[in-house]
Amino acid sequence: VTAILPIAVDGMGGDKAPGEIIEGARRAVQEVGVPVVLVGRPEELGGDHGLEVLPASEVIAMAADPASSVRTMKDSSLVRAAEAVRDGKASAMISAGNTGATMASALLRMGRIKGVRRPAIATPIPVPGGKPTVLLDAGANSECQADWLVQFAQMGAVLARERYEITAPKIGLLSIGEEAGKGNPLVKETHKLLQDASLGSAVFVGNVEGRDIMTDEVDVVVTDGFTGNVALKTLEGGMRALVNALFGVFAASDEAKAAAEVLMPGLLPLYAQLDPDSYGGAMLLGVDGVCIISHGSSSATAIVNAVRVAADMVDHDVVGLLRAAIAT
Amino acid sequence: VTAILPIAVDGMGGDKAPGEIIEGARRAVQEVGVPVVLVGRPEELGGDHGLEVLPASEVIAMAADPASSVRTMKDSSLVRAAEAVRDGKASAMISAGNTGATMASALLRMGRIKGVRRPAIATPIPVPGGKPTVLLDAGANSECQADWLVQFAQMGAVLARERYEITAPKIGLLSIGEEAGKGNPLVKETHKLLQDASLGSAVFVGNVEGRDIMTDEVDVVVTDGFTGNVALKTLEGGMRALVNALFGVFAASDEAKAAAEVLMPGLLPLYAQLDPDSYGGAMLLGVDGVCIISHGSSSATAIVNAVRVAADMVDHDVVGLLRAAIAT
Repeated sequence: VTAILPIAVDGMGGDKAPGEIIEGARRAVQEVGVPVVLVGRPEELGGDHGLEVLPASEVIAMAADPASSVRTMKDSSLVRAAEAVRDGKASAMISAGNTGATMASALLRMGRIKGVRRPAIATPIPVPGGKPTVLLDAGANSECQADWLVQFAQMGAVLARERYEITAPKIGLLSIGEEAGKGNPLVKETHKLLQDASLGSAVFVGNVEGRDIMTDEVDVVVTDGFTGNVALKTLEGGMRALVNALFGVFAASDEAKAAAEVLMPGLLPLYAQLDPDSYGGAMLLGVDGVCIISHGSSSATAIVNAVRVAADMVDHDVVGLLRAAIAT
Repeated sequence: VTAILPIAVDGMGGDKAPGEIIEGARRAVQEVGVPVVLVGRPEELGGDHGLEVLPASEVIAMAADPASSVRTMKDSSLVRAAEAVRDGKASAMISAGNTGATMASALLRMGRIKGVRRPAIATPIPVPGGKPTVLLDAGANSECQADWLVQFAQMGAVLARERYEITAPKIGLLSIGEEAGKGNPLVKETHKLLQDASLGSAVFVGNVEGRDIMTDEVDVVVTDGFTGNVALKTLEGGMRALVNALFGVFAASDEAKAAAEVLMPGLLPLYAQLDPDSYGGAMLLGVDGVCIISHGSSSATAIVNAVRVAADMVDHDVVGLLRAAIAT
């Protein structure tokens, strides 16, 4: 990893801020080997961590209105983090805070990559035993146009190649049937456009269904931000329900506990692969800089992994490659 | 169970037809205690099963175009099954065949309940340790209007009360944030309408997210058929991926196999609860008769359970109650 500019971590954002965020930033410096700057109120961030602090006096609350907060709170940690990237003082920004405000800060301060209609949230979905599937848009745009979805496909393809080393990513359009004529009007129009779109080494494999997301049948799943967010949250909820039920079975008796203990060496890697903290966060693609949106519940480990993702994106010049992909 | 009219089972529909369908119908007579009539080609259905056969010479293929098939194949098993319900010769129809053609047959032959704008597919989503959540529309209408969704809420409420004995069902509107202002235009408009809608003993709890579906926070989740189908398939795919990964862990060594054996008494009920076959199928609500749409991969057990669901709906006069709920 050769990122030299520090990665700006919003020290004030997230359910476990600032404690877990500071701890994650500190560990990231050691474990990932990149410089990190914490952004936020110096008095709350303290100095024991030994990290550089970029002061910001305001905090945008988790439930605050994104647009008006970003407009009025110019000295907020989110706005200052985005400005640090814009001004060449940081190579990337990371926040576990208000998702809408993170997007708005990045969009308003960094701007869009030239030609990008709308930035999209790209979320890696774990595939047991395989490489993750990139789902986008996972929630940035609740209403979309077909040509935006084509750009999501182009951007997702770059990510699949660079982050997950998939040489010829398979791009699928999320629908309710594999036939080209199935779906809503947005899907039907996008399907046509994707057949002729410039996707580099990626291949448009047609419509895919929700059941394909967690398989190797597809590497990038393109959809509007409403459907994508519903799919993502539904999957998270389903996994949690099943994992909780399993824990119930494992704890039901002393015999069960002993048996579960035997299975742990196999179960733990699976659990880790499905744990959202392992992925560090989602990536906001289409803004002119690296922006990682971490889960509100991010632990220190999630922040370490977010820094890892950010450093990898900087290292691979993903923003430059997105620029090239959109320009074609 | 007091249903006296037989339940019409499409003997020709489904990946495992006619073998598993015949076997399921035969078992249903014994296990559920209701009469069943098999619909289809007498020469393919045979006579060893001892069931009444309603002859139909045509079969609508799984991938056939629904509307034109139903229009042209008047002697198909699906059309004949729907006509049997319409003509008072059967109390319900069940098919594991072409979903679109099943809907079209039911809609065109039985007609809609007076006042119903569009029928919807209601699918029970298992909640480990709890009662299922009814998701509708799970795929009948890829584009919806707000007033249709209000009717889906009214119909889902009836189902939650009658099928799952939930006295005051909690109705949620699927969105991408719990606040009333979040979502796409359809969600925003529906949210307003649901606040004033007549829902009987049911309560509108506002927007819910995908992660709430498999919890006790909500009993009925209302959405358009595109989003609902994506959520359903995504959940199915996620569960399958996780269960397959678990089987991998359980089979990894002799030690693991022995440990998994110990856990089986706890795991099997959970597996059964999550198995789509346990639910028998989805219910097409809004047509003037009971219509169960079973999974294409239905086994004999799925058919037994579908007959159980159909008999229960007939017994509770769900169609009559839907009529009353829509008329208010």
